[in-house]
Amino acid sequence: MNFPKITRRRVLAGLGSVPLAAAAGTPVRHRPAPPAPPEPDGTRRTTLIRGADLVLTMDPALGDGTLGTLEDGVDVLLREGTIAAVGRRLGVPPGARVIDARGKLVLPGFVDLHNHLWQSSIRGGCADQDLNGWLSACNRAVLPKIHPADMYRFVHLAALDALQAGVTTVVDWVHAIPYDTSGRYVRALDDAGLRFVYAMTQSGADRHLIREVKKDFIDPLPLASAQVSVHAGMSDIKDLRQLHDLSRELDLMINSHVLEHRDDRKDEQIRALREVGAFGPRLLMNHAVHLTDDEIALTGDHDVRVAHCPLSNMRLASGIMPLPALHHRRVRAGLGHDGGTNDTSDMFALMKAAVGLQRARHEDAGIHPTIPAVLRMATLGGAECIGMADRVGSLTPGKRADVLVLDPGTLNFAPRYDWTSQIVLNGQPPNLSHVFVDGWLRKDRGELTGVDTARVVHEAERAAAHVRAA
Amino acid sequence: MNFPKITRRRVLAGLGSVPLAAAAGTPVRHRPAPPAPPEPDGTRRTTLIRGADLVLTMDPALGDGTLGTLEDGVDVLLREGTIAAVGRRLGVPPGARVIDARGKLVLPGFVDLHNHLWQSSIRGGCADQDLNGWLSACNRAVLPKIHPADMYRFVHLAALDALQAGVTTVVDWVHAIPYDTSGRYVRALDDAGLRFVYAMTQSGADRHLIREVKKDFIDPLPLASAQVSVHAGMSDIKDLRQLHDLSRELDLMINSHVLEHRDDRKDEQIRALREVGAFGPRLLMNHAVHLTDDEIALTGDHDVRVAHCPLSNMRLASGIMPLPALHHRRVRAGLGHDGGTNDTSDMFALMKAAVGLQRARHEDAGIHPTIPAVLRMATLGGAECIGMADRVGSLTPGKRADVLVLDPGTLNFAPRYDWTSQIVLNGQPPNLSHVFVDGWLRKDRGELTGVDTARVVHEAERAAAHVRAA
Repeated sequence: MNFPKITRRRVLAGLGSVPLAAAAGTPVRHRPAPPAPPEPDGTRRTTLIRGADLVLTMDPALGDGTLGTLEDGVDVLLREGTIAAVGRRLGVPPGARVIDARGKLVLPGFVDLHNHLWQSSIRGGCADQDLNGWLSACNRAVLPKIHPADMYRFVHLAALDALQAGVTTVVDWVHAIPYDTSGRYVRALDDAGLRFVYAMTQSGADRHLIREVKKDFIDPLPLASAQVSVHAGMSDIKDLRQLHDLSRELDLMINSHVLEHRDDRKDEQIRALREVGAFGPRLLMNHAVHLTDDEIALTGDHDVRVAHCPLSNMRLASGIMPLPALHHRRVRAGLGHDGGTNDTSDMFALMKAAVGLQRARHEDAGIHPTIPAVLRMATLGGAECIGMADRVGSLTPGKRADVLVLDPGTLNFAPRYDWTSQIVLNGQPPNLSHVFVDGWLRKDRGELTGVDTARVVHEAERAAAHVRAA
Repeated sequence: MNFPKITRRRVLAGLGSVPLAAAAGTPVRHRPAPPAPPEPDGTRRTTLIRGADLVLTMDPALGDGTLGTLEDGVDVLLREGTIAAVGRRLGVPPGARVIDARGKLVLPGFVDLHNHLWQSSIRGGCADQDLNGWLSACNRAVLPKIHPADMYRFVHLAALDALQAGVTTVVDWVHAIPYDTSGRYVRALDDAGLRFVYAMTQSGADRHLIREVKKDFIDPLPLASAQVSVHAGMSDIKDLRQLHDLSRELDLMINSHVLEHRDDRKDEQIRALREVGAFGPRLLMNHAVHLTDDEIALTGDHDVRVAHCPLSNMRLASGIMPLPALHHRRVRAGLGHDGGTNDTSDMFALMKAAVGLQRARHEDAGIHPTIPAVLRMATLGGAECIGMADRVGSLTPGKRADVLVLDPGTLNFAPRYDWTSQIVLNGQPPNLSHVFVDGWLRKDRGELTGVDTARVVHEAERAAAHVRAA
C-alpha cells in the first residue's frame, strides 16, 4: 500500500453548510470547496456521511455534554484525509461518495493504547498461567521461532482484526526483534491500513537499531510514528538510561510495562523510571495495576500517562487497576487490549470490561469509568495519552478522518433505548459498517476493503504450522 | 412454528461406522440405517456433521479429559432430533444432509441459565444505576408500558439474538404478567426455535395463572418446560409458601434471585426459602453474590443450584460471586446472561468474564473456573442445574441434538494454537456457522434460517416507539 503524501491543511467545507461548530460558538472559516483532488485509490474519495441519527464527536465544543453529542440528521464530511465539517445539510460536493447514515451512529475511531500484535501467534496459549507463567511458556518460547515472513503473517492478521473492530490507531509495543523482522512487522501494519505507533525496544548495546528502523521503515509512512519501548527496572537501569537518552534525542515517547504483576515491585520500576528522568508526560505506563497510593499521586503530579488493559489483567490474573484513584488524581488514561488477552481486538468488550470490573469490585455504579468516560478513554483519551489529540480522537474539523459508522439495526443491538450506553453494553465488531482511517475507507458495509480475508487466515495458519514444527 | 411430536427413541447409527463411544468403552448398538423419515420442515433432515477437527463432547466417556475431547476427522450424526452417533467414518445415511466440518469445531449448544428476554426493551437503560436504581427507573417503569403485541416483538428479537450466539436452551425468569401477555411471550420463544424453560411468577392470589399458562401454552410445546419463579424473602413469605406448594403440585423447580445486592440480606431470603422447604436440589438461585461462608456450605449441603451472571453483576455493580468457594463445596453452577446486562446474549463474552473476574480478584490463574470448567458450566453444567442433563448439555448419543459448529477461520479466532481456550478467549457469536436445536438447523452458514432479521429489528423498533410514547 503506497500512501500519497499527506498535507495537513485544515479544511473546513462551506458548500452552503450549517456547521454545528459555528452553532456551538467555535469560529468556522467558510471558503469555496476546492475541486476534488485526483486520488490514487478510490477508497479515499471525498465522502459525505449523511444524516446520522447520533454522532458522538468527543468534542464538547461541537455538541452536547462531554461526548459532544449531536442528534438527528447530522452529516460528517471527509476530504483529503481530514474531517472537513460536521453539520446539517452540508450538501454533496461534486464527485463525492455519499454514505447513507440515516438510522446509524457515527463516532471517532478507537485508539488501542497497548498491544503486541505478533501475539496472534499464541492465541489461547498458556491459558492456565498467570503473567509470568505465560511469559515464560508462551511469549518467550514462541517469539524466537517466528521467521520474518511469518511475523508479517501474524501481525497482518491481528492488525486487520483490530481494524474491523474499529481500531484506527494502535500502539504496538514490539519486543526486541532484528532489523529485517522489524521491516516485515512494519509492512504488515502499514499494509493493514491503520494508523500505528511502533514502540520498539532493543538492548542498550543494540539501540542503534531503533534509530535505523525509525529512519528506514517508520519515517516514510504517513500513518506511522514511533516510540521507544523499555523494560523499566533497577536491574536494567543502564539499558533503561541509554534507551531513555535515545528517546530524547529522537523526540519520542517512552513506553513501559509497570507493576503489571504484584512481583514486579521488587525491581523498583518506578524508582528506575524516576532515576533516569523518564517519569513525566512523555512516559506511557501500561497496566499499572499495583501502584501504591503514593505512586498514584506521583503519577498524577508528573502527568505520566497510563494504558488500562482490563481484559488482559483478567485473563492473566494480574489484578484490578486502581483506575478510579488514578482518575481522581487526573491521570490521563486510555484502553489497551494487550497481547495477553490473546487476543481478538474487540473494543466493545474492552470498554464493557473496564466499566464492569470497577463496578463489581467497588459495588458502586457511579465509580469511574462511567459509560461516557469509557467511550472517551477509548477515543480521545487514548489519543491524549500519546500526544496525538491534535490529530485524532474526536471529530473536530481539521483532524485526520478516523471515523466509524455503527449500524444499530441488528439482533444484538436493537431496539433503541439509550444508544450511547448500548455502544458499550451491546456493541460487537460486526456492528461497525464503515471504518475510515485518514479518510481511506477500510471497511465498507461490514467488509474490509481490498482484503482477501480467507487468504490472510490461510497465511496465518501456515505461519502457525511453521511455529509448531520449529 | 409447529413442531412435530418428538419420539425420544435412542438412535445409535451403525452404517459401517466406528463410533468413538465404543472405542471409549461405552456400549454401542449397531443396526442398519432406517430410511430417512419424511419431515415437515427441511431443516430437520438427518444430518451428518462430517470430519470436524475438534469436538468437545462434554462427555468424558466419549473422549479425552473432562470435556470428552475428540480430534481429527470426527463425525456427528443427528437423526430424528437426537444425537445418533459420534465417531469416525460414519458414512452418509440415505437422504442425509452433509455439513462439511473439516477445519471446524463442534460442541453442544449453550445453556443460558438466567435471562429476562423481555428486557431487550431496555437495552442500555439506566446504565448509571446499580441493581436497585435500575429496577426502579428501567425495569419497573417500562414493563407496565409493554402491550402484549410488543412483548412478542421484544422477546422474539432477544430470543433470536441468543440463538445466533449459540444459546440452544434459555431459562427465562418472567415477571408477573397477564395470561394473554404470557401467551404472546411463549409464542415468541417458540417461534424463535430454541429450547426454553419458562419460569413464571405471580402473586400468591393469582397463582392459578401459573397452572393455566403451563397447561395452555407450555405443555403443548416439545421444546418448552416450566418452572415457578419467586421473590424469596421473609416479607413475602406467605406468597412464597403458596408458590412453593404449587411448584410441588406441578412437579416444577423453583427459581429465585438470591442475594444479588448486598441490601437483599435484610429480607432474609435464604431463611425464607428454608422455612417453606424450598432449599434443596429443586431450587435454582440466581446471582448468589453475597452469600456468607455458612450459606455457601449450606448451599452445597442441600444441593441447591446456582446461576452465575458475571456480566450482569459487573454492569449493575452487584459484586463478585464467591464462585470458587461454591465450587469447593461442590455446588452445581451454570452461567446466565440475565436481563440486567441488557444486553446481548454473547456466551463467549460471558464465559470470558466468568474466568477473568475471579482471576482478577484473586490474582490466581488457577482459580475456578478454569477454561475447561467454564465451558462445562456453559453447557452440561447448566443442564445439570435444571435437571435436563439427561436430554441436553453434551453430545452423548441419545440426547437431543442441540449442537454448535464453530468456524475458527476468521480474523478474530485464527490461527490455531489452543483451540479449546480460543473458544473462550477469542470466540464471537459470528464464529458459530451452524446451530442445531433438537436437530432443527436454526443457523446455517452464519445466518439464522427462515428469519427475516431486518423485519424482526424493525418490529422491535416499532415496539420501542410505542413504549417511548406511553
